[in-house]
Amino acid sequence: MRAWEANFRKVEPYTPGEQPKNPRVIKLNTNENPYPPSPAAAEVLRSMDPALLRKYPDPDSSLLRDAIAEYYGICPDRVFVGVGSDDVLGMAFLTFFNGPKPVLFPNITYSFYDVWADLFRVPYETQPLDKDFRIVPEDYMKPNGGIVIANPNAPTGVELSRDLIEEIVKANQESVVIVDEAYVDFGARSALPLTEKYENLLVVQTFSKSRAFAGVRIGFAMGHPSLINALNCVKNSYNSYTMTTPSILLGAAVMKDRAYFEESTAKVIATRERVKKELSALGFTFGDSKSNFIFAKREGTDAKKLFEAMRADGIFVRYFNKPLIRDYLRISIGTDEEMDTFLGYVKQYLAKQGS
Amino acid sequence: MRAWEANFRKVEPYTPGEQPKNPRVIKLNTNENPYPPSPAAAEVLRSMDPALLRKYPDPDSSLLRDAIAEYYGICPDRVFVGVGSDDVLGMAFLTFFNGPKPVLFPNITYSFYDVWADLFRVPYETQPLDKDFRIVPEDYMKPNGGIVIANPNAPTGVELSRDLIEEIVKANQESVVIVDEAYVDFGARSALPLTEKYENLLVVQTFSKSRAFAGVRIGFAMGHPSLINALNCVKNSYNSYTMTTPSILLGAAVMKDRAYFEESTAKVIATRERVKKELSALGFTFGDSKSNFIFAKREGTDAKKLFEAMRADGIFVRYFNKPLIRDYLRISIGTDEEMDTFLGYVKQYLAKQGS
Repeated sequence: MRAWEANFRKVEPYTPGEQPKNPRVIKLNTNENPYPPSPAAAEVLRSMDPALLRKYPDPDSSLLRDAIAEYYGICPDRVFVGVGSDDVLGMAFLTFFNGPKPVLFPNITYSFYDVWADLFRVPYETQPLDKDFRIVPEDYMKPNGGIVIANPNAPTGVELSRDLIEEIVKANQESVVIVDEAYVDFGARSALPLTEKYENLLVVQTFSKSRAFAGVRIGFAMGHPSLINALNCVKNSYNSYTMTTPSILLGAAVMKDRAYFEESTAKVIATRERVKKELSALGFTFGDSKSNFIFAKREGTDAKKLFEAMRADGIFVRYFNKPLIRDYLRISIGTDEEMDTFLGYVKQYLAKQGS
Repeated sequence: MRAWEANFRKVEPYTPGEQPKNPRVIKLNTNENPYPPSPAAAEVLRSMDPALLRKYPDPDSSLLRDAIAEYYGICPDRVFVGVGSDDVLGMAFLTFFNGPKPVLFPNITYSFYDVWADLFRVPYETQPLDKDFRIVPEDYMKPNGGIVIANPNAPTGVELSRDLIEEIVKANQESVVIVDEAYVDFGARSALPLTEKYENLLVVQTFSKSRAFAGVRIGFAMGHPSLINALNCVKNSYNSYTMTTPSILLGAAVMKDRAYFEESTAKVIATRERVKKELSALGFTFGDSKSNFIFAKREGTDAKKLFEAMRADGIFVRYFNKPLIRDYLRISIGTDEEMDTFLGYVKQYLAKQGS
């Protein structure tokens, strides 16, 4: 080891899903939207004045925050924006979780939570899901330094009802409770209305899934201005200009196109419900996903082997080689055509296995 | 105070220069490039396929890193990219400065350094400049947990020679030494060649100034692959996809246009040298700036009053109300026309003051 390496921060980085460069791959592995973003995006790209780019962006991202606030019918001072919801959530861990008590989150959930906790040396304690992969609210009613719940949960897709979310928030008036709603637009109920009632609740959403803008990197948090201010203070202690000018302009334009958004999320939901039926018919079991993916297993089928066979043939889904979930595949919802190719492959594979 | 606020991180955020929304302001306050970016930027915007944006960006930003590596004649594994050099430097503080000994940087320098140190609880000790605002290399030859030097320094514009940089790097083989070269393209010598010889040296640059891309938010670090790997590990523990797809495409295209870059930096340098002469004739004194700004004072003129008078008339420069530098103004180099307006204003102001 070189002498200066003694001072390096030791971390175990998050492993994102593969981003194959081959465009022929059927990519059902990172929960991207199969449909392009609103046509408003093309208009912004074509009409943007490149000379604008010589100047720093608006540090308040006002255009974008205003568009989000208007969409949800709240004040802009209740909106924080960041470089994808990972930036928003990471900043929230750094800002809100500086106490000695452990932060609580499920043992099966978005696998970045423990990575952020380790990175920022936040103590944490994971809570088990029940046998149907449901969160058990009672587990979150003990002393803690904060709570993080993905809803619908990742990678299970299972929703916790708004009433149960409210019970958790209500019982934890000494902590900040973060509800990570990356997938909420595909049929779950948002906790947003509860932020008017509970000042300790922060709701985080993203443009990456339902708004087909993973490449533009926009996440946002909504909550009481005291939470938003605290996030802005820490953000401005790290980087005053996180949002690029193109991201601000693109995000604002796309957020205004409500009709396109509703139409394309409805298409994803319809495809998901159809794929659920077909997977059931093939003997798969899964929770009632309210997201743009299905987390499924099949008795007698080795998930890892199926994952690898599909991968070799250019169909990518996600497999987590981790305790409790290593029998499962997480399958993102693509276009109907992509899902037909996927289902056809699975049928053939099972026939060959004679199972 | 609300109960959960006890766990908030306490910070004193960096204050960036004002970004007035009035386009008629002559903006000489944030060291932006007065010329637009390379015409390659417009081509990228016009030809970008918006459907691309539904997918996550390349987490390795390969196109952009390759373009930077090719420009500087180094391997891509020696390049790290981030959301402006603030992201790169902030990430470097978090990655490299985890020892008990203080990190050293000048007492007059980029005012984000102490903000990052406070944010990440890094111990630090500032070292005085000499009376001509020069860094004293001997001050950096004592036990430390890391060294950060802006070169040319901010907000002075004064360059430290490459030989003196090498002396500091050589004498500190147990620490990571960061040289922040945000302004280096305006006539100073880069320490980049030294990174081939010293594995503990990290050179940080940005697209925000010389490449007229402040709105696109691209900074980069160059150094030994062991430093770059460590930065990537910490980055991937925070946000795997920091660079947007538009930023990757725009940055790569602009980096390839060497001719435009050389021409527009030469114009800024020529204007700067002319403005130096004119300010001298008006009785101002300043160090020999090698950046795109001049840090100047005038005996008998109250800098704060001049700053405020100009500001009221729509000419923005930067004033730091801080010990040691409160007699100075930092004036960014604009177009020749903008500088003529600025100089005309100053002449008139001094005439009115009868000084």
